[in-house]
Amino acid sequence: MRTTGPIYNFAGGPAVMPKSVLMRAQDELLDWHNTGMSVLEMPFSSTHFISIMASAKQKIRDILAIPANYQILFMQGGASTQFSLIPMNLLSANGQATYIDTGYWSLKAASEAKNYGTIHLGASVKHSAPLSIPDLADWRVPAQSEYCHITSNETATGVAFHADPKLKSIPLIADMTSDFMSRPICIENYGLVYAGTQKNIGPTGLVILIIRDDLIKKARPEIPNIFSYQEHLVNNNRLNTPLTYSIYLTDLACDWIIQQGGVLALAQRNQQRADKLYALLDADSFYSCHVEQQCRSVMNLCFQLPNTQLERAFLAAAEQQGLLNLQGHQQVGGIRASLYNAQTADAINALADFMEDFRATHSSQR
Amino acid sequence: MRTTGPIYNFAGGPAVMPKSVLMRAQDELLDWHNTGMSVLEMPFSSTHFISIMASAKQKIRDILAIPANYQILFMQGGASTQFSLIPMNLLSANGQATYIDTGYWSLKAASEAKNYGTIHLGASVKHSAPLSIPDLADWRVPAQSEYCHITSNETATGVAFHADPKLKSIPLIADMTSDFMSRPICIENYGLVYAGTQKNIGPTGLVILIIRDDLIKKARPEIPNIFSYQEHLVNNNRLNTPLTYSIYLTDLACDWIIQQGGVLALAQRNQQRADKLYALLDADSFYSCHVEQQCRSVMNLCFQLPNTQLERAFLAAAEQQGLLNLQGHQQVGGIRASLYNAQTADAINALADFMEDFRATHSSQR
Repeated sequence: MRTTGPIYNFAGGPAVMPKSVLMRAQDELLDWHNTGMSVLEMPFSSTHFISIMASAKQKIRDILAIPANYQILFMQGGASTQFSLIPMNLLSANGQATYIDTGYWSLKAASEAKNYGTIHLGASVKHSAPLSIPDLADWRVPAQSEYCHITSNETATGVAFHADPKLKSIPLIADMTSDFMSRPICIENYGLVYAGTQKNIGPTGLVILIIRDDLIKKARPEIPNIFSYQEHLVNNNRLNTPLTYSIYLTDLACDWIIQQGGVLALAQRNQQRADKLYALLDADSFYSCHVEQQCRSVMNLCFQLPNTQLERAFLAAAEQQGLLNLQGHQQVGGIRASLYNAQTADAINALADFMEDFRATHSSQR
Repeated sequence: MRTTGPIYNFAGGPAVMPKSVLMRAQDELLDWHNTGMSVLEMPFSSTHFISIMASAKQKIRDILAIPANYQILFMQGGASTQFSLIPMNLLSANGQATYIDTGYWSLKAASEAKNYGTIHLGASVKHSAPLSIPDLADWRVPAQSEYCHITSNETATGVAFHADPKLKSIPLIADMTSDFMSRPICIENYGLVYAGTQKNIGPTGLVILIIRDDLIKKARPEIPNIFSYQEHLVNNNRLNTPLTYSIYLTDLACDWIIQQGGVLALAQRNQQRADKLYALLDADSFYSCHVEQQCRSVMNLCFQLPNTQLERAFLAAAEQQGLLNLQGHQQVGGIRASLYNAQTADAINALADFMEDFRATHSSQR
């Protein structure tokens, strides 16, 4: 399977990581900072690990300019677990919340929340092409809603918000799993932001959760300890054994983000790369992207070829050239190139060249 | 802090890992099996990762002789999350279950279960010295109990079962976090066994859960998907992104266990090591162990010195000689040496020598 040249990994997540982060992890795997111990072997209550966790949190705070009235928690079980923990913590018994349907992941979040209260769909993406996110002015968010939930970037369909929506009074919650730390965010627009780390940061299972003080105070105290944001916070995020190694890798990834110039520099670079590839898609009708211009994802370029036979040929030829994991989400099909932070310029150029070549040699077959 | 010689890590978990496992992880960190990809970067639905997960499960099945009517699941959130998931899945609405109190961790499990039904304490460890586990014949397990829960090894106090209890008809559930894969188990005595992997295997957050088919079928289908054993099983343990890297490390740790001769060989070796250290404790009254002979943990050697001043001196002198993380559990105090699978003979010998020297130089101060 392996080609002799370099490989380029366009997976939707777990996804490519910066080589320098992997090299540092490799270098420190047997002995972290001359302690004679791997981070994998460290007690989570040791001063060493406590310093790693504090360092990772401070870097996240600095990179995203998170003010003091927001708390950062490292949680476990991936974003899918938060689909239940958010209503468990923030919805009163028989309470109401509103979810904005932008596609696959937002509907999953809404569906799980229905176990805990009455869930309104405040707006829905047009599910036929071209996909687009309804204007904020058209959202119906009932006043009784205890929160409103969005998915900032839909990895399966390549639909994304390009600005942080601002609601008047109802707390806004965002699942930012697939664009977290790829761009600056206006955190003041949100009551709670959460993100699995397996896209732009690295490890699977870890969730970074940023919550405003008033929502922590509002959280229901009677739920089981292990699901309670308050309990995790009161116990300094060491209520149970945390994902120590994943938190360490997050700390290394934050260093890399800072070296790249931070999230503003990354956002500009990411946008330029996406623009280049979207322009290639739009150049003629061989490739088609079913997402409206103003809500095209910068992270997940989703597109189709004239027929599934050509899509299969595209994927096979790409793999031959070391361009891997370009198949679309299993529920959606088509092609997906994920362009997370750690994607290299070489990978983008190799993909663009391949797409142009493939179009040149196959456009007669459409 | 670091001494110039070797260090020996006696942490209660996360704990020391086999050096050969860490070296293999280090070697493969940037490129797993010539794929050009780190395991950290692999899609969890790729054939590569599916093969790693299948390999880890097959090795666990082989090592512990798990028959076909038990299923193996990799879960997230550590054993503490299972304290809630077990009653959520296996307790009917207003159902009853029995927990055997052997100390800190079993009481935590029982306390969390109270959120979901009526919980009986079927027996309790004597909480004053010497600690001992009540005989099976003396347990009171009401017939209405949908299951009976034990903690096979209490890391905080060093109390452990030395045989797998056998109940007549009520399914027995065991939290084996701190002795899993350190000894053979008679799985037929259990309906469900679960273990966090941060003691004898390595990574934190991952839970290995082994459940008998009839209990999976009995599990409540109406609970949220992410908490449902049935949903995880039906979705081939890929209901959401699994802890890919931790599963990979578990696969490597299984290889190491097989190289050591399997769990029977490890159990014999572990017992000899523990016996040597317990004999040292019992040799005179300088050190004291408050656990009765027949339920002394092979994994966690917990003991006291004549006073806390001597205990502080012991810990400081040990650290000077590279014997690290010997302080007792924060709720219990005293000294704890954890002797998990990956502990080396050198570490055991260094500890024994140090303990003898310390006694010789300090026994006049008692």
